[in-house]
Amino acid sequence: MDLDRCEEDNMPRIIIIMGSKADLEHSRRIASLVKEFGVECKLRIASAHKTPLKVLEILKEQENEEAVFITVAGRSNALSGLVDANTLKPVIACPSLGEKFAEVDLFSSLRMPSGVAPLVVLEPEQAALAALKILALRDKELQERIKRYQEGKREEVEKGDREASKM
Amino acid sequence: MDLDRCEEDNMPRIIIIMGSKADLEHSRRIASLVKEFGVECKLRIASAHKTPLKVLEILKEQENEEAVFITVAGRSNALSGLVDANTLKPVIACPSLGEKFAEVDLFSSLRMPSGVAPLVVLEPEQAALAALKILALRDKELQERIKRYQEGKREEVEKGDREASKM
Amino acid sequence: MDLDRCEEDNMPRIIIIMGSKADLEHSRRIASLVKEFGVECKLRIASAHKTPLKVLEILKEQENEEAVFITVAGRSNALSGLVDANTLKPVIACPSLGEKFAEVDLFSSLRMPSGVAPLVVLEPEQAALAALKILALRDKELQERIKRYQEGKREEVEKGDREASKM
Amino acid sequence: MDLDRCEEDNMPRIIIIMGSKADLEHSRRIASLVKEFGVECKLRIASAHKTPLKVLEILKEQENEEAVFITVAGRSNALSGLVDANTLKPVIACPSLGEKFAEVDLFSSLRMPSGVAPLVVLEPEQAALAALKILALRDKELQERIKRYQEGKREEVEKGDREASKM
Amino acid sequence: MDLDRCEEDNMPRIIIIMGSKADLEHSRRIASLVKEFGVECKLRIASAHKTPLKVLEILKEQENEEAVFITVAGRSNALSGLVDANTLKPVIACPSLGEKFAEVDLFSSLRMPSGVAPLVVLEPEQAALAALKILALRDKELQERIKRYQEGKREEVEKGDREASKM
Amino acid sequence: MDLDRCEEDNMPRIIIIMGSKADLEHSRRIASLVKEFGVECKLRIASAHKTPLKVLEILKEQENEEAVFITVAGRSNALSGLVDANTLKPVIACPSLGEKFAEVDLFSSLRMPSGVAPLVVLEPEQAALAALKILALRDKELQERIKRYQEGKREEVEKGDREASKM
Amino acid sequence: MDLDRCEEDNMPRIIIIMGSKADLEHSRRIASLVKEFGVECKLRIASAHKTPLKVLEILKEQENEEAVFITVAGRSNALSGLVDANTLKPVIACPSLGEKFAEVDLFSSLRMPSGVAPLVVLEPEQAALAALKILALRDKELQERIKRYQEGKREEVEKGDREASKM
Amino acid sequence: MDLDRCEEDNMPRIIIIMGSKADLEHSRRIASLVKEFGVECKLRIASAHKTPLKVLEILKEQENEEAVFITVAGRSNALSGLVDANTLKPVIACPSLGEKFAEVDLFSSLRMPSGVAPLVVLEPEQAALAALKILALRDKELQERIKRYQEGKREEVEKGDREASKM
Repeated sequence: MDLDRCEEDNMPRIIIIMGSKADLEHSRRIASLVKEFGVECKLRIASAHKTPLKVLEILKEQENEEAVFITVAGRSNALSGLVDANTLKPVIACPSLGEKFAEVDLFSSLRMPSGVAPLVVLEPEQAALAALKILALRDKELQERIKRYQEGKREEVEKGDREASKM
Repeated sequence: MDLDRCEEDNMPRIIIIMGSKADLEHSRRIASLVKEFGVECKLRIASAHKTPLKVLEILKEQENEEAVFITVAGRSNALSGLVDANTLKPVIACPSLGEKFAEVDLFSSLRMPSGVAPLVVLEPEQAALAALKILALRDKELQERIKRYQEGKREEVEKGDREASKM
Repeated sequence: MDLDRCEEDNMPRIIIIMGSKADLEHSRRIASLVKEFGVECKLRIASAHKTPLKVLEILKEQENEEAVFITVAGRSNALSGLVDANTLKPVIACPSLGEKFAEVDLFSSLRMPSGVAPLVVLEPEQAALAALKILALRDKELQERIKRYQEGKREEVEKGDREASKM
Repeated sequence: MDLDRCEEDNMPRIIIIMGSKADLEHSRRIASLVKEFGVECKLRIASAHKTPLKVLEILKEQENEEAVFITVAGRSNALSGLVDANTLKPVIACPSLGEKFAEVDLFSSLRMPSGVAPLVVLEPEQAALAALKILALRDKELQERIKRYQEGKREEVEKGDREASKM
Repeated sequence: MDLDRCEEDNMPRIIIIMGSKADLEHSRRIASLVKEFGVECKLRIASAHKTPLKVLEILKEQENEEAVFITVAGRSNALSGLVDANTLKPVIACPSLGEKFAEVDLFSSLRMPSGVAPLVVLEPEQAALAALKILALRDKELQERIKRYQEGKREEVEKGDREASKM
Repeated sequence: MDLDRCEEDNMPRIIIIMGSKADLEHSRRIASLVKEFGVECKLRIASAHKTPLKVLEILKEQENEEAVFITVAGRSNALSGLVDANTLKPVIACPSLGEKFAEVDLFSSLRMPSGVAPLVVLEPEQAALAALKILALRDKELQERIKRYQEGKREEVEKGDREASKM
Repeated sequence: MDLDRCEEDNMPRIIIIMGSKADLEHSRRIASLVKEFGVECKLRIASAHKTPLKVLEILKEQENEEAVFITVAGRSNALSGLVDANTLKPVIACPSLGEKFAEVDLFSSLRMPSGVAPLVVLEPEQAALAALKILALRDKELQERIKRYQEGKREEVEKGDREASKM
Repeated sequence: MDLDRCEEDNMPRIIIIMGSKADLEHSRRIASLVKEFGVECKLRIASAHKTPLKVLEILKEQENEEAVFITVAGRSNALSGLVDANTLKPVIACPSLGEKFAEVDLFSSLRMPSGVAPLVVLEPEQAALAALKILALRDKELQERIKRYQEGKREEVEKGDREASKM
């Protein structure tokens, strides 16, 4: 990975906002992949229910940057919609689903009112990858890295097939 | 109904906040029953996603009153939790569930984070009745009205039985 | 916590009725938080199916008090509706959901007939907090404690954010 | 049908208790089939939530008879369990499921506590037929009628096959 | 328990048919409670899919007895309907639900065609108790035992309440 | 379509067994597509619950033929498993799902015991097409027809794209 | 709306690929909103199952553009994942959910394998809005339009509140 | 088992294609049973999302053989439909369902568009058995083996019954 790039690029371009400290593990899995691509990323905690003003304040700090928000919240996800309705930037919701109620909780990330449009994915890897694709739209170097990542995934399939075919 | 009471009691004691104009019909069914009990009730619209500051402002207006909030929102219900987390008053969530996704949408009213505790009911009549019971805790006259309402419901059952027994 | 208050306040203001001894652990988590707020609370066991007369008797004992009922029942929850239909006081249902059937069992607490309006929450903390908010409507001291509790929750978020921001 | 039998047999052997007048149509479909078999059947209305004492009273009236109870309730079914826990007679629950929430409401008829065992069927025809089979255990004439009914159902299948085979 | 009765009563009055040997543990829990009530009970294995003729043969053996069938099957329950459609006796379905698919598998016991009416319960204790209530309709001694069993369950609740009230 | 083939090929190679006359419309949609491919097909009605011997008898009639069974049943599908367990031929289950309970009913076609393996599809067109593919394994002419059918489906997509691209 | 912009901007920046002509109405609702923002948008039809090569070809045509893909497919959604895995551009999945199976079909858009990350929204308006936000990251004019759109949504809430407050 | 047959029969007649190496264990359980019947079987890995061309290539290799495809994929199953739409051979989908989301993931194997008809089973044993039945249509020896397998299953039931009857 190209660490130089990482350093010069010190304005965070991906901001992960989570609703509570309990979502930290989930959020760090996203951040970790983002950083492997040499993209700066920041972790923030703010609750849409308990500290909505803080959520709005975080959005304001990013106002003039080219950034993507990733929101992480468990249970009833109010955070993703609050963030999306109050920013011009794209918002990716990657809810931290527990064991119980996972299937129904998911709908609180999806069933948004008119004018509110967070984009939902299920897994930390997917949140990171989708956010990177957005930033890569005008960043040829990042495009190249995503291409290599996708090729790596394809190569895994090919390698698996070579092994399986011999069984 | 005791209209005198209604007039002297002109500080609204039940405030219904709905998330969008689309919830108006649902909210009016609540208000209508509340008013039959001679209790003042106010309708407000504010979106937890789109106008969270307005939600907070409405809560502040009621700060010194003995009041109960009823929140009405469809789809992913962020409103009830936002209201509850920012008031000392009891909050009753009565989501306006559509045809599609009703069962899963309901969970967005229930799956609240720690420290946030809106009370959920399914039907407008139930939201009104529960709010009235709370206000009746120190209001003997209102208690009397609720008692008569409950007796009316029992009498309906009895009357139905007298008819059915003859079939 | 203000123990003096606890002592002078010796008429229980929150009565937790559970359907079976199996719900004791769940109920004690509610009682424990209630008591931290200096509010007297009582635990009772009575089955809506097996000992309905006992349920009614418990309600009668509380007839002249300013109290809130919290009902705790697993599986098909008949208790919350029975209590609510036979008291003028507010009733909070906090069902003890098992591993299996949790999502469907919940509906037996919510799908009430006309005139019956228990208020549903999912977690013991929420049952306690909502009951306390109801009692606090005319109790400035209790309001103050709830305010501090809510502030504590907000501070947790802020503290989490300070830590996460540094990562 | 053997109307003589119907007359001499004037102690109702099947008692249908429904929770509200809204369940009348559903209950009459059960009663109608029961009567086609020449068995006396009675319709009663009593609410487990609102008039539990009335439910217990109806059970007492039947105390010395050889009878089967069929319970019909919509939404959260508290009635079937209340009846079953307070009678020595078999209880068949045939909930009146609406359009919405049918799949989840059903579980409130099934998820009973220890010692409570109402028997669940989905359709009025099935409630009637199962109740009749119970009564037929020591009633050869009724057995004969059930046999003819089952044979009629088989003959329908055979007749359908003769028609379908020619297509 | 009255062992004399058990001995003279040696025609099994409850026949538990299970679909596979994997259901044996579940079935024995039913049988064990039945036997505590001094009622003879027999365990049989036959598959509605794989050995339907054997199922029919078992039914024929019981043709002239006053008996109740309890059917136990996991996954897609074809057994309960096959038994019910081919006997004049009452049939109680007590499916052996696994961890996965429990909620959906249950419907295969309930969604029966016209003329087929097995009675569904969820737990082994409930299958036993309901079957005993059916047999008790003309058996005063068995009625007495069921009464004592129900009283025992009530006493458990009372005892629990005495303990909880002191907490 | 090649009608000559249809005539010489007069031993039915696809047998559709449905559980009741109510499934006739659903079954005819399957038969109609099968016949468009020039393959003989027969409709039969037999109930796994009510007339299991008739089901077995139908299977025996086909014992020496190269045939595929398609089973059509609504509600709890016992038919598909009964057919599959008692034939050496492939069995395709195409349940006739109603409006209510469709999602749960489907599982009664899928959750089969060991040694029983009906193949499930959701739509009549799919039942026909899959059955035809099986018969085509050694029938070059039929392969050709399926190829043309698949190409027709692809051409529909292409044609749609040409129209949509111009919008 | 600024039509000049529309004309000069004639390389489509949003490409909607749908799986079948049946998705046309759904897709046009997306396109219609996109165009209101003065952004060029193209409609294509290609099936991931039936014409996968055509899907890949469409992706190749867009290789050098700054574009966002929106995928629309009903039933089992293979299209969104196929598109996402084979492009470096962001992909928004907006499945066309029918009446039946809507809740379960949705999961086929979300449950993606490693390395595949389409972004899911439920409504056409949300697909358009989210795609526009992505393109607006470096397009100040488009940002301005989105801002006005969000403000319009807020104003609707405010206007509704002014009306409701007077009731 | 007849090893001679196994050797002469060295063109694989069952090809198991799985979507990722993670499905290998599931796929080997299928292969293992297939081989017990003396039928050659091959394992391949190719992803419908990531390597669709490879999927098509595998299908082409089998073009002139009498073969059955079994597809194994977890999460959103695009593979089974892609395979089925691009081959004239029968395709059996046996999805590898995880702990979470099993019930909803299943629908991605079933909800196919027009002209696409993979046949769904839940268990590896069922995939193998159904594929073998298809191949056995013109293979008397394989028919004989399946017959013995089915008889073995019946004998298991009989043996279980002999043991249970003695309890």
